[in-house]
Amino acid sequence: MSIVRDAERMARAQLTYLAEPGDQAAGVWLRVCGPEALIAAVRTDRVPATIDEVSRAEGGKGPAWVRRAMRNWRARLAEIPAERDLAAAELAGMRLVCPGDSEWPTQLDVLGDARPYALWLRGRADLRNSCLRAVSVVGARAATAYGAYVAAELSAGLANRGWVVVSGGAYGVDGAAHRGALAADGLTVVVLACGVDDPYPPGHRSLFDAAAAQGTLMSEWPPGRNPKKYRFLVRNRVIAALSRGTVVVEARRRSGALSTARYARDLCRPLMAVPGPITSEASAGCHWIMREWGAVCVTGVNEVLEQVALVGEHLESHGPVVEAAELDPLTARVLDAVPARGGAGPATVAASAGVDLDTVLSRLGQLAAGGFVVRAPRGWRLAGKNDA
Amino acid sequence: MSIVRDAERMARAQLTYLAEPGDQAAGVWLRVCGPEALIAAVRTDRVPATIDEVSRAEGGKGPAWVRRAMRNWRARLAEIPAERDLAAAELAGMRLVCPGDSEWPTQLDVLGDARPYALWLRGRADLRNSCLRAVSVVGARAATAYGAYVAAELSAGLANRGWVVVSGGAYGVDGAAHRGALAADGLTVVVLACGVDDPYPPGHRSLFDAAAAQGTLMSEWPPGRNPKKYRFLVRNRVIAALSRGTVVVEARRRSGALSTARYARDLCRPLMAVPGPITSEASAGCHWIMREWGAVCVTGVNEVLEQVALVGEHLESHGPVVEAAELDPLTARVLDAVPARGGAGPATVAASAGVDLDTVLSRLGQLAAGGFVVRAPRGWRLAGKNDA
Repeated sequence: MSIVRDAERMARAQLTYLAEPGDQAAGVWLRVCGPEALIAAVRTDRVPATIDEVSRAEGGKGPAWVRRAMRNWRARLAEIPAERDLAAAELAGMRLVCPGDSEWPTQLDVLGDARPYALWLRGRADLRNSCLRAVSVVGARAATAYGAYVAAELSAGLANRGWVVVSGGAYGVDGAAHRGALAADGLTVVVLACGVDDPYPPGHRSLFDAAAAQGTLMSEWPPGRNPKKYRFLVRNRVIAALSRGTVVVEARRRSGALSTARYARDLCRPLMAVPGPITSEASAGCHWIMREWGAVCVTGVNEVLEQVALVGEHLESHGPVVEAAELDPLTARVLDAVPARGGAGPATVAASAGVDLDTVLSRLGQLAAGGFVVRAPRGWRLAGKNDA
Repeated sequence: MSIVRDAERMARAQLTYLAEPGDQAAGVWLRVCGPEALIAAVRTDRVPATIDEVSRAEGGKGPAWVRRAMRNWRARLAEIPAERDLAAAELAGMRLVCPGDSEWPTQLDVLGDARPYALWLRGRADLRNSCLRAVSVVGARAATAYGAYVAAELSAGLANRGWVVVSGGAYGVDGAAHRGALAADGLTVVVLACGVDDPYPPGHRSLFDAAAAQGTLMSEWPPGRNPKKYRFLVRNRVIAALSRGTVVVEARRRSGALSTARYARDLCRPLMAVPGPITSEASAGCHWIMREWGAVCVTGVNEVLEQVALVGEHLESHGPVVEAAELDPLTARVLDAVPARGGAGPATVAASAGVDLDTVLSRLGQLAAGGFVVRAPRGWRLAGKNDA
């Protein structure tokens, strides 16, 4: 189904092994000469003239600097698996999504030259559909009971309203956010700073399995990569860019969660913070970004939706954010099988659509995230005017 | 010492018995014909032509409306004490302060026609001097332990930095604010909605006595007036106007404390709110005014001072906000007796100035509020460049 040529996909997959995400030089050169030529340049150690030119013009960097960057990438060439192993990774429950793929979340394109080279995914949900209506809920690993409670409640509330919760999968606020969304049968997206084959932290293994079954694990880093401190910070720009807005639930004054907040602010995405007692250091960063960065003080789901939802989604109706005509054929068949009134259980929808139950379950989640269907007391039905 | 003519002072004192504070008609007519003519008009039931004209021109009210307002005031004429009793009130520890008096806080003039007709005061501190550097700390009567703690801490911190705490004397946040300021040996101003002779609530009697000894009790209502619900709300405009900024410590979504916040906002004075747990209804009003009215999220004294202090007071030095030449002679004598370095106890200052100890204590408080002197480890000394 991909419209990306296979050679380009392969080159992008290889690039995720060579260059650290967010590397500005790699981003510029990728734009200038494309992934295949870039990989070829690294392999042959021959820098195209266009790269020298653009480096001088845009970054003021000389040829020596360009050579040094190339040398760093060359040193990693041996880490790239054989092409058949890359293909095998896709078979092992992982998949690669590249710019131009139908599953590529185009909102990441605002990152410009810092856009991910490609994304490694694990999980059932379609990433692009999921993230049409997504909010990032982030915060400190050292969350208090208050922070964990608020993160879970807020995320469950967002899930109940058909929104997808994006977070970083860490202990504390992130984990509580994912769990809250999952507990409310919502979709959740875990943006990792390591390979999706071995997500970090290992203590969240069952959470990651649940998120893969009911959402997506994603990473800019290839399978096998370990997390590093700087990788978490680089990863945070993707959390901010992937969602319509970012909520910081708890963060100390120097918490890494504030880097996500800063990206959200710099991308002009709605930035929100949950207040807490001023006697709690764990809320000091939230209060600080309210005062200094204009983060909006939010205390519940409605207030979050006021910041991120379009008028048509929140205040007036709950209509779809993409046209039904843009859905893939299988999802459209599931949608056709959902009744307009009353409600039908997944098994009924599966029988009516002639699709297996697993597929129906995952497509219903995506359709809910897209605003096409809602969970009614008696099952699933089409979203109507009054489902805001 | 007053520059207000005695007849005018007497008329203003009488007006506080006749018209409710904040009465717009009374304010307009007072502006148009002055207090003496207004009292005469009520007594004789003869409305000057200027009043009919201005009422039509400014409020679109006809003569019938004017006559009705006049009738209401006439009905209260019997409540005005005899002139000698009014004079006796001043002897009984109360005093009347009118616009134009040296103790009149001119910042109240921003209230325009809703400016108090006059103020009834009880207590030692000079109201105008006190309020040169004042912050209002207000909130709900039904404060939580958190709210009471924060109000007291914040107010003690403001007092330690030479700021005066203004509040409404109620149970809950107000009382904690006054107590915090008093505990830190600061001045505090209680703005009452009833007579200063019998301040409400009676359960705060010892607090009011302490505030009178170390600050001021003030009211727009004359002695003997009882508090009413609408009087608290009218009173709140004075709390907002008297101070450089207003901090709401705890308030439910429909708390009366938000009316003070609204006045502060409408007067373009810095409006601040203290955050709290979103699980506490007692903080819901604070979060709401942050979101809806742009109240600044403050978590400590420094953040409050960033909003209300001028650069010269807070960031660079702690110099006086009025010229020493503007001080009254007695206060100036006390100031002359304070050493520039080291420090001197009040008794030493009293001996050096040739003034009694009580006077020295109250003047030192005023001089500290004005930024002239600071409390040093070894007593009082002149404020210097580094006392920010």
